[in-house]
Amino acid sequence: MKISINANRCEPSPMRKFHPLAVQAQKAGKKIYHLNIGQPDLPTPKAYLEAVRNFDQQTLAYEASPGAPELIDAIRKYYADLGVYLAPRDVLVTTGGSEALLLTCLSILDPYTEVIIPEPYYPNYTTFVHAAGGRIRALHTSPEEGYRYAYRKRIESLITSNTRAILITNPGNPTGVVLDEQEMRMIADIAKKHDLFLICDEVYREFCYDDKFGVPTMARYDDLDDNLVIIDSVSKRFSACGARVGCVITKNKELQQALLKFCQSRLSVATIDQIGAAALYSVDKGFFKASKETYRQRRDLVVSRLRQIPGVLVEEPMGAFYVMARLPVDDADKFQRWLLESFDDNGDTVMFAPGAPFYETPGKGINEVRIAYVRSIEELSRAMDLLAKGIARYQTEVMEA
Amino acid sequence: MKISINANRCEPSPMRKFHPLAVQAQKAGKKIYHLNIGQPDLPTPKAYLEAVRNFDQQTLAYEASPGAPELIDAIRKYYADLGVYLAPRDVLVTTGGSEALLLTCLSILDPYTEVIIPEPYYPNYTTFVHAAGGRIRALHTSPEEGYRYAYRKRIESLITSNTRAILITNPGNPTGVVLDEQEMRMIADIAKKHDLFLICDEVYREFCYDDKFGVPTMARYDDLDDNLVIIDSVSKRFSACGARVGCVITKNKELQQALLKFCQSRLSVATIDQIGAAALYSVDKGFFKASKETYRQRRDLVVSRLRQIPGVLVEEPMGAFYVMARLPVDDADKFQRWLLESFDDNGDTVMFAPGAPFYETPGKGINEVRIAYVRSIEELSRAMDLLAKGIARYQTEVMEA
Repeated sequence: MKISINANRCEPSPMRKFHPLAVQAQKAGKKIYHLNIGQPDLPTPKAYLEAVRNFDQQTLAYEASPGAPELIDAIRKYYADLGVYLAPRDVLVTTGGSEALLLTCLSILDPYTEVIIPEPYYPNYTTFVHAAGGRIRALHTSPEEGYRYAYRKRIESLITSNTRAILITNPGNPTGVVLDEQEMRMIADIAKKHDLFLICDEVYREFCYDDKFGVPTMARYDDLDDNLVIIDSVSKRFSACGARVGCVITKNKELQQALLKFCQSRLSVATIDQIGAAALYSVDKGFFKASKETYRQRRDLVVSRLRQIPGVLVEEPMGAFYVMARLPVDDADKFQRWLLESFDDNGDTVMFAPGAPFYETPGKGINEVRIAYVRSIEELSRAMDLLAKGIARYQTEVMEA
Repeated sequence: MKISINANRCEPSPMRKFHPLAVQAQKAGKKIYHLNIGQPDLPTPKAYLEAVRNFDQQTLAYEASPGAPELIDAIRKYYADLGVYLAPRDVLVTTGGSEALLLTCLSILDPYTEVIIPEPYYPNYTTFVHAAGGRIRALHTSPEEGYRYAYRKRIESLITSNTRAILITNPGNPTGVVLDEQEMRMIADIAKKHDLFLICDEVYREFCYDDKFGVPTMARYDDLDDNLVIIDSVSKRFSACGARVGCVITKNKELQQALLKFCQSRLSVATIDQIGAAALYSVDKGFFKASKETYRQRRDLVVSRLRQIPGVLVEEPMGAFYVMARLPVDDADKFQRWLLESFDDNGDTVMFAPGAPFYETPGKGINEVRIAYVRSIEELSRAMDLLAKGIARYQTEVMEA
């Protein structure tokens, strides 16, 4: 029996890599402050469970393959409020943004074709691209330039006859980079000029901390219809990750057909979660404002505390709820292991996501980390304490030893 | 922009192909008796919604990537009652049996490798195999031999160096064929001898209408650990298709690792559906008995009525809730179209799934149909009336015209 080449080219999730060590540390009595996963702590709007509890069909039946009509309408209305007008067929509901990405990759990638992705990027992109036999062509960025990637020459230099798509996350995970209007337009123009799909993962759209960005979406460009694929989800927007409800949006008719075939093959997305998700879209806009303000305060705290640690290089993220930082350590992976096995401060330690798996380029990101600021101010404050103390002790006890 | 070769090799769902014509017929005032989809009409046990309604976490968070521990335990207990002992890591919860199949194909198929599948088979298998770049090698069966496929020589004659797996559905969809003990052992031996994965889609396991079969599962063979992959789901077992909760079960360590990487990439299965699904497994065994008896009566009615129609060739199905039949028409596709566009009896007409898409071999199944007996006795009785009248009129008005 053989495992497929594509499966062998995938890696286990870096966010979950240290889970066994964390379990051991907990068994040893340590309390761990988790900054390693992007699971928001904010309450899910009550509309979700209320709608779910009102479900009263005798038989829990399949929904339509493209999605529940009422959810598709709710999504269309949400987009109309952003000035984007979608036909029902432009929206295919998926099991999270994850399935939207996997089905998009299966629909547009042949073996050895390439997707250009700015690095560091969300590591699960690797699995989706590799599942389809594709390759990631990394558009390299660095902490020194604040991880910004919207440079025409650099992007165009990566395009070959094998390139099928450019995939961007805006606002960015893990970097928090948000594209400005000019940058968005420039990337859109590159996709058009070179006849490429432009896959925009915009699940963090509501979390932009400078008002000049508004609620950014590539979907506003009406000359991009054949190129554009929007990946969307209720997970972060409504603090409802466990719903596993997302969607893929495109006006490209051929891609719609290809995606629909995959959607039909898996029959439908979970019925009651679609009912809950549709209800989320009726939540008052004040919810977004309040969530954003909460994350902004957390970002401000984390960034200012990181800046107080000698040797840390960090750019203030403009969006999403992550910050990527370079730490004054030799190897973030080694440092994380040490924090779990050999460090504690009054019984506490801290976890982040080591940076290397966010890069395609070998050797990059070794001393970088991604920190998810999805905990309370008190918890984040204590976690930053632990990070500062950890770095100081690691430098003395390990690096200088 | 290009659509992938694999996506282009997939077909739209044959079960949903006539949907636009059905909508037109309904608009014209016709009532349609739907025998075309396998959506059970039996009520979902109340335990599902009760458990879901009791969910009281403030934040709807991701579950663990391999599945909710309480659901995995419930599944393990269900299997233990069948005499099958599973470790927690042997079970990976998936978004329906559909995701279980897709992830299995992505994990074990390389481009141009082959899966042997008895035909007629569930048409969505094509999409899952093609998504991974694989090919289906059809093990042909015919209505004359009751669609039975467990013949060693025929199976072995299809095995090449490109063969990665044998995929069987037991009990069978669309044929209702159930393997006996000897046949199961023989197919297991072939998989072992030739070092192939044996993928057993056993989602209809509880629906065997001859007591000699019991509740069949390949998982009882303890010498198959490296070969066996069980595809399972709560959809049919508990009349809970809309939950989208299934699982893939294997003791093959390498395959577990590959599958887990894909599971991690899509983060988790919907949280509250897993809570509901776990509750389903606590339902009294009387539920299975009652469901089976209901379907048995429906099968008896449908088969006896089909046998009364001159020229119909049908074998009594031993399991699942489908029957495959050869009709005395030139082309089931043409006949279905005619039933929707040009036929009615007191304003009523009937839909089934035309047979050709259930076959890989071109030209096969043209005058066969799949009938799903998931409606009440009254509805099925009227539907059989309509079919008989439709055939008689079609023969006179179209075939002899």
